[in-house]
Amino acid sequence: MKLTPKGAATRSRIVATAADLVLARGIGGTSLDDIRAGTATSKSQLFHYFPGGKAELVGAIASFQGERVLDAQRPFLDALDSWDAWESWRSAVVDHYGSQQHWGCPISALAREALGNDPERAGELAAFMDRWRGYLQTGVARMRFAGILRPDADPEKLSLSIFAALQGGLLLTQTMHAIEPLEAALDGALTALRAAAA
Amino acid sequence: MKLTPKGAATRSRIVATAADLVLARGIGGTSLDDIRAGTATSKSQLFHYFPGGKAELVGAIASFQGERVLDAQRPFLDALDSWDAWESWRSAVVDHYGSQQHWGCPISALAREALGNDPERAGELAAFMDRWRGYLQTGVARMRFAGILRPDADPEKLSLSIFAALQGGLLLTQTMHAIEPLEAALDGALTALRAAAA
Repeated sequence: MKLTPKGAATRSRIVATAADLVLARGIGGTSLDDIRAGTATSKSQLFHYFPGGKAELVGAIASFQGERVLDAQRPFLDALDSWDAWESWRSAVVDHYGSQQHWGCPISALAREALGNDPERAGELAAFMDRWRGYLQTGVARMRFAGILRPDADPEKLSLSIFAALQGGLLLTQTMHAIEPLEAALDGALTALRAAAA
Repeated sequence: MKLTPKGAATRSRIVATAADLVLARGIGGTSLDDIRAGTATSKSQLFHYFPGGKAELVGAIASFQGERVLDAQRPFLDALDSWDAWESWRSAVVDHYGSQQHWGCPISALAREALGNDPERAGELAAFMDRWRGYLQTGVARMRFAGILRPDADPEKLSLSIFAALQGGLLLTQTMHAIEPLEAALDGALTALRAAAA
């Protein structure tokens, strides 16, 4: 669908607001009526922007949250090739989620909910998460190539462990209403990475 | 409520089956009718065992999953006072969740769902998770007391990072349908613990 700039802005506004509603209540707990009410949009307007209905809107929310999550980690995520870069990335992550700690990770929340009832969406979200982890793997590989890490450092395994720490830290930050679990998790993961230093 | 041994067995059977249903579909996605059908129980039977309705059943499910999760980590969880004990714990966790990897962590799944709509239940589940983490903290403290870890090792922070790795590993094991994320996460967490060795 081709939108005017004004139309695109309206669509973006609906997605951003709906994303927050879904984060708080889950996909299953958020009806199209809730979204209409929350975004002050009429039924026909909502249909105009999302002819595919709720499924299309959830897809747009997933893309929106994915971009937001990656943006918050940039530029560090793209060049994790020094200890300074990893520490800066760690700080950017803590800053970003510290300001919205009750949400946890929006992507894994969507992924987990989709697992039970929307395998296609769950697959897309898992692929996004693996792309996100891929930035960490590339960073570990660059550190190894530069001789900062030992030749036997395993970029895939190390990136999995750092990404798992990030996800677990976010989950506990959400259930415990505190940022310390995320800090501890990332510090632990970076300590393990440093244990592979050359 | 006082149950006969046979009644207690029936109640346990209902809870165990309902627990699996809720794990697959979430609390919100599982109706009392689903549970009746899944457990071959009549409406009046269900009411007999759970006069408090769905809320009481969800509470029983949470307790059941909590016991199961802790039992799977025993006896190691109670005496994490040597490197061998930590490695045995790691193996027990991987074995347990490797056999049911599509479920992830039942406790955090319940906790996450409760966050949005049942603050009291969410609080209970968060308290349970903190008790679970507490076993790890006690283990780290014992390792420090025994001089295996350095005096400046921080049991609370280290246990948070190990528990976050466990939770994140379980989440990724669920979204990626593979046990490797959990293995990588726990190995990374134990590497970080070893970095605090005396």
